[in-house]
Amino acid sequence: MKKFINDVDLVEEQMIQGMVKAYPQYLKKLDCGNVVVRAAKKEGKVALVSGGGSGHEPAHGGYVGEGMLDAAVAGTVFTSPTPDQIYEAIKEVATEAGVLLIVKNYTGDVMNFEMGEEMAQMEGIQVEHVITNDDVAVKDSLYTVGRRGVAGTVFVHKIAGALAEQGAALPEVKAAALKVIDNVRTMGAAIAPCTVPAAGNPGFTLSENEMEVGIGIHGEPGTHRDEIRTADDTADLLLDQILADIDYTGSEVAVMINGAGATPLMELYIIHNHVADVLKDKGIRVYRTYVGEYMTSIEMQGFSISLLKLDDQLKELLDSKADTPAWKEIGGKIHG
Amino acid sequence: MKKFINDVDLVEEQMIQGMVKAYPQYLKKLDCGNVVVRAAKKEGKVALVSGGGSGHEPAHGGYVGEGMLDAAVAGTVFTSPTPDQIYEAIKEVATEAGVLLIVKNYTGDVMNFEMGEEMAQMEGIQVEHVITNDDVAVKDSLYTVGRRGVAGTVFVHKIAGALAEQGAALPEVKAAALKVIDNVRTMGAAIAPCTVPAAGNPGFTLSENEMEVGIGIHGEPGTHRDEIRTADDTADLLLDQILADIDYTGSEVAVMINGAGATPLMELYIIHNHVADVLKDKGIRVYRTYVGEYMTSIEMQGFSISLLKLDDQLKELLDSKADTPAWKEIGGKIHG
Repeated sequence: MKKFINDVDLVEEQMIQGMVKAYPQYLKKLDCGNVVVRAAKKEGKVALVSGGGSGHEPAHGGYVGEGMLDAAVAGTVFTSPTPDQIYEAIKEVATEAGVLLIVKNYTGDVMNFEMGEEMAQMEGIQVEHVITNDDVAVKDSLYTVGRRGVAGTVFVHKIAGALAEQGAALPEVKAAALKVIDNVRTMGAAIAPCTVPAAGNPGFTLSENEMEVGIGIHGEPGTHRDEIRTADDTADLLLDQILADIDYTGSEVAVMINGAGATPLMELYIIHNHVADVLKDKGIRVYRTYVGEYMTSIEMQGFSISLLKLDDQLKELLDSKADTPAWKEIGGKIHG
Repeated sequence: MKKFINDVDLVEEQMIQGMVKAYPQYLKKLDCGNVVVRAAKKEGKVALVSGGGSGHEPAHGGYVGEGMLDAAVAGTVFTSPTPDQIYEAIKEVATEAGVLLIVKNYTGDVMNFEMGEEMAQMEGIQVEHVITNDDVAVKDSLYTVGRRGVAGTVFVHKIAGALAEQGAALPEVKAAALKVIDNVRTMGAAIAPCTVPAAGNPGFTLSENEMEVGIGIHGEPGTHRDEIRTADDTADLLLDQILADIDYTGSEVAVMINGAGATPLMELYIIHNHVADVLKDKGIRVYRTYVGEYMTSIEMQGFSISLLKLDDQLKELLDSKADTPAWKEIGGKIHG
């Protein structure tokens, strides 16, 4: 295992410390474990809390800041944070407007976030949650009942976060989050695995000509293994399954081409070149495109495609000001 | 070679097309080759043009937009763009206020940018250039007379770009660019190479326990090969050499921890955790920190550290509004 780390037992702690030290204008870390909150608490708004296992950076700490999250709770790599951590995060950021938890659909995450939620509710804090499940690759997986929550989760952060920042009430913010969840679909593929530091070895192996189609963000199996194809053909494999799940014809969409960690922008742009052409051919109008690393799998070589069907509300919220380490929008005008 | 590409001969073209299709609100591509310019030309300001070989994404096309560059010229991977391409870029974005070229110090780049500059001057366009040379690792290298221009170049884009956007005249914009060049130093290390698509094989090899210290952004040799160390010790190796080159004691600095392409944010944050501590111990005050991929080497596993010594002018320009695909600043207020 060749990595720039110091000690496998200190990876999460040193990573979070390094992030918070880089962005003191946005972030501070709670003493009770790897919980990151906004440097300055904003009262009177619905507080948004997300999180999950580490290894998906910049998710979720990178999305803490104005117009997105209020707190992010980080477990050890690919492992759910504990209910205690989640409870501490909720308690720290809670306001009288309530708290919304945004949870990716993995059994451990759902269980622990619900326990944290109940602990906070017992103290009289108003908390609700939504569960993201955008991955069309598999129904019920290694760690999931139902579809997995993957990169589309970041659209939930952005859109629910924008509405919360405007002062909307908890039911409205939750409804917007659910609207994103209903309208976003994702699928990914990988050509090389990642190594969890504490494990020391890659989570799976692929031969020189193989790729995993429909892979999960922890390297879980997807729909099948296939011979490696061109970027265009690989993108088609994923797009076909996304487009079979929701009819996007005639709609406006946001597109995310998300890198898994070790796939360079060069390749993500080449993939996008084809995705843009296919969507145009199918009469799907692209409103905004995001190409980069939004929800990674340490240093996996792979990518995912997400499509989010938009309406006027979602478009306005997507373009609203955001000021976080990993997602910034100038806001105040609609470009393009 | 396992990559998401279609054809090694189409890598640059499809990458640029994919980038421009992703960001039509920011970018358009000229017909004359891989030149990217702002979607809407802004008259009356000094136009900034940069570029170089492809493979360093998001540099330089990702920095075209409000508050940064007006054009980026992309050669094939790790190869200088041609004088013709550079000339076309200059001609497209030139205004009566003149044009400043920002060139990384590589023999081919310097020669071709100077030829492009002369071609434009012969048409009466006012053009000047600056050469970045922030890499303290080596003096005179494989492709360079003098130090190499690496990640610190992006600070030149940001700061000269902000001043040009404010309407400053060419001598002032050039002076600010030179001030950044005088005050920024960088050094990198790598633990695994990258593969130029057209070559099909890694540019160099390292054994399981080896790293290249002082590596260049094309995989050029650095100061030496060393046994792989902890993240903290590796950061110290680089910092020592940077701090020996400029006395930053008592200064305010901007810090960039730049990923080479396949090194995950997890590791960059762990590296930063130590860098922040060392700077604090040495009485160097950090004004802003940037952790991410700013100047990559395709999918090399490595990172660089850049330190930029700041004064009030540079701080204000660093924080000014920027709206480009790869660097956004909200502007309008100073955080933190």
